[in-house]
Amino acid sequence: MSDAKIRRPKAETPKGFRDYFGAEVTTRKAMLDKIAEVYHRYGFDPLETSAVETVEALGKFLPDVDRPNEGVFAWQDEDKDWLALRYDLTAPLARVAAQYRNDLPSPYRRYAMGPVWRNEKPGPGRFRQFYQCDADTVGSGSVAADAEICAMLADALETVGIPRGDYVVKVNNRKVLNGVMEVAGLAGDDKDAERGIVLRAIDKIDRLGEDGVRALLGEGRKDESGDFTKGAGLSEAQADVVMGFAMAIDRILDRTQTYLEDADEAEQNRQYYEDAKRLLLIERGAGRADGEKHTLGSVRLLNTRTLNYLSDIVGTSKIGIQGVEELKEIADLLGAGGYGPDQIRIDPSVVRGLGYYTGPVFEAELTFEILDEKGRKRSFGSVAGGGRYDGLVKRFTGQDVPATGVSIGVDRLLAALRAKGRSTGDTAGPVVVTVMDRDRMADYMSMVADLRNAGIRAEVYLGNPKNFGNQLKYADKRQSPVAVIQGGNEAEKGTVILKDLILGAQIAKDATLEEWKDRPAQVEVPRADLVAAVRKMLAQ
Amino acid sequence: MSDAKIRRPKAETPKGFRDYFGAEVTTRKAMLDKIAEVYHRYGFDPLETSAVETVEALGKFLPDVDRPNEGVFAWQDEDKDWLALRYDLTAPLARVAAQYRNDLPSPYRRYAMGPVWRNEKPGPGRFRQFYQCDADTVGSGSVAADAEICAMLADALETVGIPRGDYVVKVNNRKVLNGVMEVAGLAGDDKDAERGIVLRAIDKIDRLGEDGVRALLGEGRKDESGDFTKGAGLSEAQADVVMGFAMAIDRILDRTQTYLEDADEAEQNRQYYEDAKRLLLIERGAGRADGEKHTLGSVRLLNTRTLNYLSDIVGTSKIGIQGVEELKEIADLLGAGGYGPDQIRIDPSVVRGLGYYTGPVFEAELTFEILDEKGRKRSFGSVAGGGRYDGLVKRFTGQDVPATGVSIGVDRLLAALRAKGRSTGDTAGPVVVTVMDRDRMADYMSMVADLRNAGIRAEVYLGNPKNFGNQLKYADKRQSPVAVIQGGNEAEKGTVILKDLILGAQIAKDATLEEWKDRPAQVEVPRADLVAAVRKMLAQ
Repeated sequence: MSDAKIRRPKAETPKGFRDYFGAEVTTRKAMLDKIAEVYHRYGFDPLETSAVETVEALGKFLPDVDRPNEGVFAWQDEDKDWLALRYDLTAPLARVAAQYRNDLPSPYRRYAMGPVWRNEKPGPGRFRQFYQCDADTVGSGSVAADAEICAMLADALETVGIPRGDYVVKVNNRKVLNGVMEVAGLAGDDKDAERGIVLRAIDKIDRLGEDGVRALLGEGRKDESGDFTKGAGLSEAQADVVMGFAMAIDRILDRTQTYLEDADEAEQNRQYYEDAKRLLLIERGAGRADGEKHTLGSVRLLNTRTLNYLSDIVGTSKIGIQGVEELKEIADLLGAGGYGPDQIRIDPSVVRGLGYYTGPVFEAELTFEILDEKGRKRSFGSVAGGGRYDGLVKRFTGQDVPATGVSIGVDRLLAALRAKGRSTGDTAGPVVVTVMDRDRMADYMSMVADLRNAGIRAEVYLGNPKNFGNQLKYADKRQSPVAVIQGGNEAEKGTVILKDLILGAQIAKDATLEEWKDRPAQVEVPRADLVAAVRKMLAQ
Repeated sequence: MSDAKIRRPKAETPKGFRDYFGAEVTTRKAMLDKIAEVYHRYGFDPLETSAVETVEALGKFLPDVDRPNEGVFAWQDEDKDWLALRYDLTAPLARVAAQYRNDLPSPYRRYAMGPVWRNEKPGPGRFRQFYQCDADTVGSGSVAADAEICAMLADALETVGIPRGDYVVKVNNRKVLNGVMEVAGLAGDDKDAERGIVLRAIDKIDRLGEDGVRALLGEGRKDESGDFTKGAGLSEAQADVVMGFAMAIDRILDRTQTYLEDADEAEQNRQYYEDAKRLLLIERGAGRADGEKHTLGSVRLLNTRTLNYLSDIVGTSKIGIQGVEELKEIADLLGAGGYGPDQIRIDPSVVRGLGYYTGPVFEAELTFEILDEKGRKRSFGSVAGGGRYDGLVKRFTGQDVPATGVSIGVDRLLAALRAKGRSTGDTAGPVVVTVMDRDRMADYMSMVADLRNAGIRAEVYLGNPKNFGNQLKYADKRQSPVAVIQGGNEAEKGTVILKDLILGAQIAKDATLEEWKDRPAQVEVPRADLVAAVRKMLAQ
């Protein structure tokens, strides 16, 4: 055939993109629907912006560059304007808040769910299109807005199926960090680069450890591959101040350990001692792995000690003191809303890499353990993060517009629900009506119509009906629970045969028919009873 | 300020794009969720492909053109591959069907809902990003698959709120048209251009009328602006054949009229006569405008007459005869499924502009009348269309893969539901807890927490609380049903005040307090009764 000479297009997604089938779609949708319900209850309104924005509005890239596609997918319009696919849901929100500032309620609470695009090197499990699920409050400078976001995040996690005790929302405040920078003599505009290095170094403490971070604060650090990362050039004394912040929780736990060791008998009879013991058991001992849970007392103790510790290290820095006060206010507001510190707690280790945060920052971590690809136990980790960013809308309007919000990593949270066996997509296959006699297609169509009208998911086999084995293979691939069969004999008698495919699969698997003998894998019923009989089989 | 010197980015969507707020999002979602439920019941599985495809896979454009962005948004990858945003949901399906042909069940029933992008001149109500909602069956050549799509479309329309009688799914078959082309001597490969002109001419009959179409079939047509469109160059005899098809319904109604005029008294006593009378009343008389509905008899009559008429005009053309037989089979299958011809009917006027259809084509029309922008009555028109396309997957694999499907115009259908007052988005605003005393924010947060925990949508006011009037203005903008107020006095007494804002608005509108006097616009209740009292007020 001449066809063979034609170069055919490749049937492939572009590199880094993928397709989602069946339950992958419904599971995600079910989760997002539940989250949307929580957001709605909190008074947040949905917003759906277009996928395409001007590069200028997105704000990370300059239109005078020849091809500004670092990180984004961008192209030039016929009017020579640069357009791009959005890389997150925050930049479009800032644009909307500026564009509609006279029409939107203020404060404006909005949520958004949808895909975003990143023109980055794809990797295993890292795609160039993925979902985000954000909620933000624009126009409120009150920490009550931050507290509300944290509470809503906790509610959302519990609603989708992460029980209390399996997650913790950690709250910190950039202002505290700024206070620490001031104390360390890193406050001026000319110290911007150093502060950036410090921020990124602290963010890596889980991976690099105390020594690694200290090296980055000083001259720099050579990694195992021999690559050298330039440090912030801090003096020993400056680095001590920063490390006091970066290692805050460790230091607090050290002090708690000392307290426990020094406690006399009278002290040991106090509830405070019990709380401290539990605190250490879980944060440093085998407590978490053994499934021990914090008590309100143990985490309240941690919160109090943390706030006191932070007060100490920010010293007389105004911004630092304000930061600690805001954290205390957030803790109080959440307490009044009924949120225990086992759900939401102050944790100075959270700094969040993004430069634009200006106040409270938060991160939701799942604390239950999973096995990593090497079979080692590790806690699941972060699924959401956010914070206060008071500068994004100002880019457009020149006026201060405070804002705060959170973004849930949809794929991470879905993976967590799968790990917990709490995925909720409807994966039930349809009842398959087989075709024994091509000329009686109308009869088979009327059977599926009856089933569908009764709310039962059903299909007639639409492939070539010649080979009946193929029809059953098809039903198997569709994970069909029941096959309906009507050959000429049955048609004459006015009956149909129902094959219980789930039972059939179980019998095939267990190979002991014995235990199933009371339950027939196949029944013949009058055509008029089709719907009732299928319903009965589905209910078994 | 130096700020003024900085050129700020414009806070604007790119030309032709828009944002969707609140109820615009939830209304669409509610409609699509209902449609998805119907598709699911029919055994269709969701598929979500990425927004980005290779230009090669999309298939309309060649990668050797310098900038292939006619109609699509396209850009060149860092590997020099051309990528583009999908312009519909069918091209990605064809790619998926080819890419996963060994893994997918066959036939493969899938539905897809999501945005598509067109790089076209935007106009009023015409955007460059819009939603499509498709369902297709790939791998079945049986007309039962086409009939199923039609039935599902009818179910979907009724489920979202278009009642029986307000819509009709019209079915035609490209094979009939091909038969007509054969009869008219337009069958050969060398007549491709002529056939294209004929197809597009027939598709415009509603707008151009009989004379306009006839001109396009002949030498060509000059429109009012003086622009000349070249015609297909058909002879008078050829054009007669084509017009016999294009005007089929008119000719059939003419014959019915003649029959009625000629009928003697005996004939007039037949049900057939009654059916024919009703048929003409509705199709040509004032019947539809007066809300008269077809009976099964009247549309069955139309179907029979149409099939007979089509049989006549395709003569001995094999493809034409096959087309008419397929239409008859579809009508029979739908009848067996319980679908009356008042829901789905044969209508030769449907040809569908797209070149790739190869068999049955369908279009769903809403028949109720609306007022156009000039205040004239007109019937709402098309909201969905589709058909059989057996060539799209072959592009990739070289093998024949039959497919059929439908696409619902999401915005059109939403507009129809709005016109019918059946829009179902949840637009209820939240209860607003006002802030009388900034220092007692924790108390107000605990009130919203109680309300939210009881499932009531609620917010605390997060703006600057100084001006209480602003808080009530905010509640008004949020369409809040109830405002909760607790000043110092109430706090001391342990009470809260509830303001019924809906009642307040009604009183303000009617200006007669008299009729509302039994219902208090404001109540004071114990703080402990907050949830119960709000619930009561919401239920009124």
